[in-house]
Amino acid sequence: MRNLKLTLQYDGTNFCGYELQPGKRTIRGELEQALRKLFGEEIKLISSSRTDSGVHALQNVVNFKTENKSVPIPKIPKALNGLLPDDIRIIEAKKVKDSFNARYDAKKKTYEYLIYNGEILPPVLLNLAWHVKPKLDLAKMKKKAKTLVGTRDFSSFCAAGGDDTNFVRTLYKVSVKKKFVTIWEGYNLSVISYKFTGNGFLYKMVRLMVGALVEAGLNQKPRRFCAPPQGLCLLKVAY
Amino acid sequence: MRNLKLTLQYDGTNFCGYELQPGKRTIRGELEQALRKLFGEEIKLISSSRTDSGVHALQNVVNFKTENKSVPIPKIPKALNGLLPDDIRIIEAKKVKDSFNARYDAKKKTYEYLIYNGEILPPVLLNLAWHVKPKLDLAKMKKKAKTLVGTRDFSSFCAAGGDDTNFVRTLYKVSVKKKFVTIWEGYNLSVISYKFTGNGFLYKMVRLMVGALVEAGLNQKPRRFCAPPQGLCLLKVAY
Repeated sequence: MRNLKLTLQYDGTNFCGYELQPGKRTIRGELEQALRKLFGEEIKLISSSRTDSGVHALQNVVNFKTENKSVPIPKIPKALNGLLPDDIRIIEAKKVKDSFNARYDAKKKTYEYLIYNGEILPPVLLNLAWHVKPKLDLAKMKKKAKTLVGTRDFSSFCAAGGDDTNFVRTLYKVSVKKKFVTIWEGYNLSVISYKFTGNGFLYKMVRLMVGALVEAGLNQKPRRFCAPPQGLCLLKVAY
Repeated sequence: MRNLKLTLQYDGTNFCGYELQPGKRTIRGELEQALRKLFGEEIKLISSSRTDSGVHALQNVVNFKTENKSVPIPKIPKALNGLLPDDIRIIEAKKVKDSFNARYDAKKKTYEYLIYNGEILPPVLLNLAWHVKPKLDLAKMKKKAKTLVGTRDFSSFCAAGGDDTNFVRTLYKVSVKKKFVTIWEGYNLSVISYKFTGNGFLYKMVRLMVGALVEAGLNQKPRRFCAPPQGLCLLKVAY
């Protein structure tokens, strides 16, 4: 029995999220189907993050156990990428110890959320950023960000529908800054970037915190607003 | 009678190109439909560049004539953007002299083409770059680029199906360089960028030149290869 860890990257635009849903195109569904073809057996994936519909990932991590040893580990990424749709890519495969669990062993996760704050949303950002038209106050958002950091019960930033029972998490860092998205020459798109690093995140926790930051930036009273998914990207999971 | 000039930006991914095609979703089709709603009359657009299916534009220019003066010019972009799908945005509207013609008066156009040269194409670049796996020789492509510059008959870089009769164009500059696409934090995607500036371009001329540059970069014999559309973006049209 081998326990294998895969690191994957995806554009979440055309997926109904990570988790299996009958009749829907999901990251896990596509991945388990490719693994079934490659290993000739049913594979059950454990994932570090079950990202929502429309959410992207630069590095999400999954693991699974298999009896099949026919595929050498260094050849797994290329073999799987040949079976997967272009919007999911396996960037690494590694043998890990039997006890490794992608979900429970994750020590630290980092998410980034992008906002385009201006009148006309450039079409190239449609699936990459949240369009907020009224001017956001950066200083107020930075102040609000500081209040989020720490170890405490985050149930006020948890949506119904998750399976968590313990709502205590540690948020190590929240940063708010302006930066540029650059794709084409001479066309630097100024965006607002929030970055969140914590030991774990509750269901929709990042998007609810983004909602709270935007409300602070607009001088609005908090009303538990969940920011749209396309601005969110899972950057990294550390073990 | 007013002659109006519009500058538009679009993500070409979900369009069958600029030019009208029965039953297909096109830039011109969407734009003429929005103009019809706004002005209450049939509008016939003249465009500087009839980009192909999948090709993007940061600044494409069109013009049209209308008797309708009910909409003040500064309000046209916002009014049209409210009627257009999100993947086309009007970034400027201007009154121009009666003789202005977006197609024939264009003096200079600049296109950029992006290539991802590596084993695994990051999903976020799927609709923005051409994936070329074998290593490209930058020096050879730069050398080839120099041979393209100048005033001459470019019919060897013209695909069948265009309506040009004069194949002489002036290519002012072709640049080949490495640069970074940056979207998310700490994740700089190294790409190869070609930039073409000329007084005009024949049907599929840029993509055929890109094909020739890539063949040079791979030490292959030229075989008139047309690069795929998604790597191409019309950056600017000057009058």
